[in-house]
Amino acid sequence: MERLSGMDASFVYLETPTLHMHVSMLGIYDTTTVPGGYRFDLLKDTISERLHLVPPFTQRLVEVPFKLHHPVWVNDPHFDIDYHVRRIAVPAPGGRRELGDLVGQLTSVPLDRTRPLWEAWVIEGLKHDRVAFLIKIHHACIDGASGAELMTELYDVEPEGREIAPPDPDDQEQIPTDAELVGYALVSKARNAWRLPGLLGKTVESATNVYRRRRDPAAKVGATPLTAPRTSFNGAITAHRKAAFARIPLDETKEVKDIFGVKVNDVVLAVTAGALRAYLERREELPPEPLLAVVPISVRAEDERGQQNNRVSAMFTSLATDIDDPVERLRAIAESTEGAKEEHNAAGARMLTDWTEYAPRRVFGVAVRAYSSMHLANRHRPIHNLVISNVPGPPFPLYFAGAELVAAYPMGPIMEGAGLNATVLSYRHHVDFGFLADRELVPDVWDLAEGVAPAFEQLREAAKNLG
Amino acid sequence: MERLSGMDASFVYLETPTLHMHVSMLGIYDTTTVPGGYRFDLLKDTISERLHLVPPFTQRLVEVPFKLHHPVWVNDPHFDIDYHVRRIAVPAPGGRRELGDLVGQLTSVPLDRTRPLWEAWVIEGLKHDRVAFLIKIHHACIDGASGAELMTELYDVEPEGREIAPPDPDDQEQIPTDAELVGYALVSKARNAWRLPGLLGKTVESATNVYRRRRDPAAKVGATPLTAPRTSFNGAITAHRKAAFARIPLDETKEVKDIFGVKVNDVVLAVTAGALRAYLERREELPPEPLLAVVPISVRAEDERGQQNNRVSAMFTSLATDIDDPVERLRAIAESTEGAKEEHNAAGARMLTDWTEYAPRRVFGVAVRAYSSMHLANRHRPIHNLVISNVPGPPFPLYFAGAELVAAYPMGPIMEGAGLNATVLSYRHHVDFGFLADRELVPDVWDLAEGVAPAFEQLREAAKNLG
Repeated sequence: MERLSGMDASFVYLETPTLHMHVSMLGIYDTTTVPGGYRFDLLKDTISERLHLVPPFTQRLVEVPFKLHHPVWVNDPHFDIDYHVRRIAVPAPGGRRELGDLVGQLTSVPLDRTRPLWEAWVIEGLKHDRVAFLIKIHHACIDGASGAELMTELYDVEPEGREIAPPDPDDQEQIPTDAELVGYALVSKARNAWRLPGLLGKTVESATNVYRRRRDPAAKVGATPLTAPRTSFNGAITAHRKAAFARIPLDETKEVKDIFGVKVNDVVLAVTAGALRAYLERREELPPEPLLAVVPISVRAEDERGQQNNRVSAMFTSLATDIDDPVERLRAIAESTEGAKEEHNAAGARMLTDWTEYAPRRVFGVAVRAYSSMHLANRHRPIHNLVISNVPGPPFPLYFAGAELVAAYPMGPIMEGAGLNATVLSYRHHVDFGFLADRELVPDVWDLAEGVAPAFEQLREAAKNLG
Repeated sequence: MERLSGMDASFVYLETPTLHMHVSMLGIYDTTTVPGGYRFDLLKDTISERLHLVPPFTQRLVEVPFKLHHPVWVNDPHFDIDYHVRRIAVPAPGGRRELGDLVGQLTSVPLDRTRPLWEAWVIEGLKHDRVAFLIKIHHACIDGASGAELMTELYDVEPEGREIAPPDPDDQEQIPTDAELVGYALVSKARNAWRLPGLLGKTVESATNVYRRRRDPAAKVGATPLTAPRTSFNGAITAHRKAAFARIPLDETKEVKDIFGVKVNDVVLAVTAGALRAYLERREELPPEPLLAVVPISVRAEDERGQQNNRVSAMFTSLATDIDDPVERLRAIAESTEGAKEEHNAAGARMLTDWTEYAPRRVFGVAVRAYSSMHLANRHRPIHNLVISNVPGPPFPLYFAGAELVAAYPMGPIMEGAGLNATVLSYRHHVDFGFLADRELVPDVWDLAEGVAPAFEQLREAAKNLG
């Protein structure tokens, strides 16, 4: 039995019929490397033998009686691998568009709360002997950084695989009784109450810090929430998603970063900003104010590695889409992210995570559901325009059931009011962009994704002229 | 604007996260008859040009303010054909099993209440140039008989199709205002109240009729609800489904019917009963008492044809699974259905439909949800073991977008407590059986479906020896 952290639990409470809180990863595999050839059962068996390495795969949520506390994770005695690992195919010709359509449909369906909160879809019928593997996992059990760690548990670094030690037979746990759950919740509540006065003090201090910095004209500042311009992809979301993908080369991304003296993350943001600017210009709706992105950042301490829960915070960053010149835009973004990070540190990086421990569970759920059902998102200025999440992945090739992973597109959830999420992962020689969008607000998400490569090309050309 | 009947509305209120109230139809098509060859867009365009012939395709539910009345149907101004008609594929080798798995997954997802309540999935990747077409429609807009009528609107009797008159431009309707909805609801309520005393009198009379018949030893009686034996497929259902299919020849079914002097419906019930008996025997769990089926019957009057809503009632019928001899079993079933029909007529065929006009909307919803969430279905004797629904279809070939319909498997919803539904349709030279089952309660639904042909063979052999 393991208690959900406040942040993990908030991702459960946040969920509504239109707001799905699963994160997804679409891996594209080359099956020609599979010893003996590809079979669906190979993939299912590979997951089966590694289930015990990834606790969320076999644990399900159990509510504490009277909702005294956040739910807890317990081992699911009815666990059924055939439920979680499914087989499907794309229609001919099995290209990117057909795959995107299918992934959009599969990610539109929420996970079943009565089961371990994941589904894996093996997608056949792709061109060139490729097979895709879509994993949906609830955000309550995973964040970007722990997701990347999970990859290392599931994958091999050689097509031949590796020896997996069987699960410890003593590690069996029963569903706790109601009395056990109540006792656990009360002890946990008491322990948390003890820490509350300290957190209150810290919060006052951090608010003062941020206020003082903003009054200092020399300080670099981030973007201000609720100042985002309205775009066609900001509005009330539906339950339905569209997906699209793009990729740029990693080595050249690093060259651009070095030449302009910025971070890889800034280049990723600038490329996304360039694609967004071109998309909005084509639609003749580029707002005069810069778009504002929320960028999740990991606040995972070194000693928390290996824990598969959420240690994330977020910073508000300008995408400088009001600037025409791609290099100036990149520099403006780098300045904004630096300011956002400094403010974030001033506020105390763990503040958001710490507070979610205390927010009453109904506060999340009721507020979000009311917000959603009243379509409030259509009525005020957007808090942010989109979420852009950038996670570093491994630079070496990974194999699953002997098949080589050739591309890995992550997709984060979209939030009420902002129907677009760009999640980005570097893997081997590429930076892979996964776009997940509301079906109604961004029906042409492929048009946006197709803008990634040209936006990067602009920066690379500018860097070449300078370098 | 059109008010839902009480029975239509009850199918909305009945729905829970585990109990989906859509009915489905899986058509298998031969694409070699398509002039110019098959393309996905041909199917979508064919539906598009016929939308106005099927009002539920473009109408969505709108709630009346303060829930003064059942919801109403109004034309959806945001109707989007690309949302409703989707394209997908089965994995290789594209046989019945792969198709069944996919159909089970697609029917496990509820329809979006904010849209017209249907989805159509074009399923590619099947063997022998076949394409399947799965339509899911909410039971609130369709019953078995109106579903069969809908087929005639959508389909053609020749591969070349026919001229479809465009929709009447005056037939556009706006979403009604709240004031209009309230006014409509109040008038409608007043009109219904007027009819209530008469219905009360009729009900007392019909209860007396049934009671009197049951005391008469000479009267044929149906099966009694709540006397069904418990089987492994009776219990609390989940959200997840499995689908399986079977077919028997229609001409020989009619020969069997003639030789034993029973109805086609009795032969269908006896074949299903034979398959169920074999299935339960193999699992060593055949109960000593006979299984009890609910058989929906149409109470549609001649002047109600062409209305696409529900006019159904139900009778309780013994499946005589305690009898080993297939012919004796058929005769026992025929006797039970005759008794059930006589009782049904004594009770007044339209009684159930009429009463649903008066049941307060919350009575359905709250009771069903409480029943479902407390898993009450696991605690008492089952009301019935399964639903078997038999609908006559056309004896001539149908075409859709030029493709010949070669088989048509209907699938009705499963109810809390009984995780199995058999829906049967006669089309051309065959009787097609669609089984929809709870994924947990009937994981091996194909074992059951494979028993249909041998069960029919037994009856055919017996008839041959007699005939």
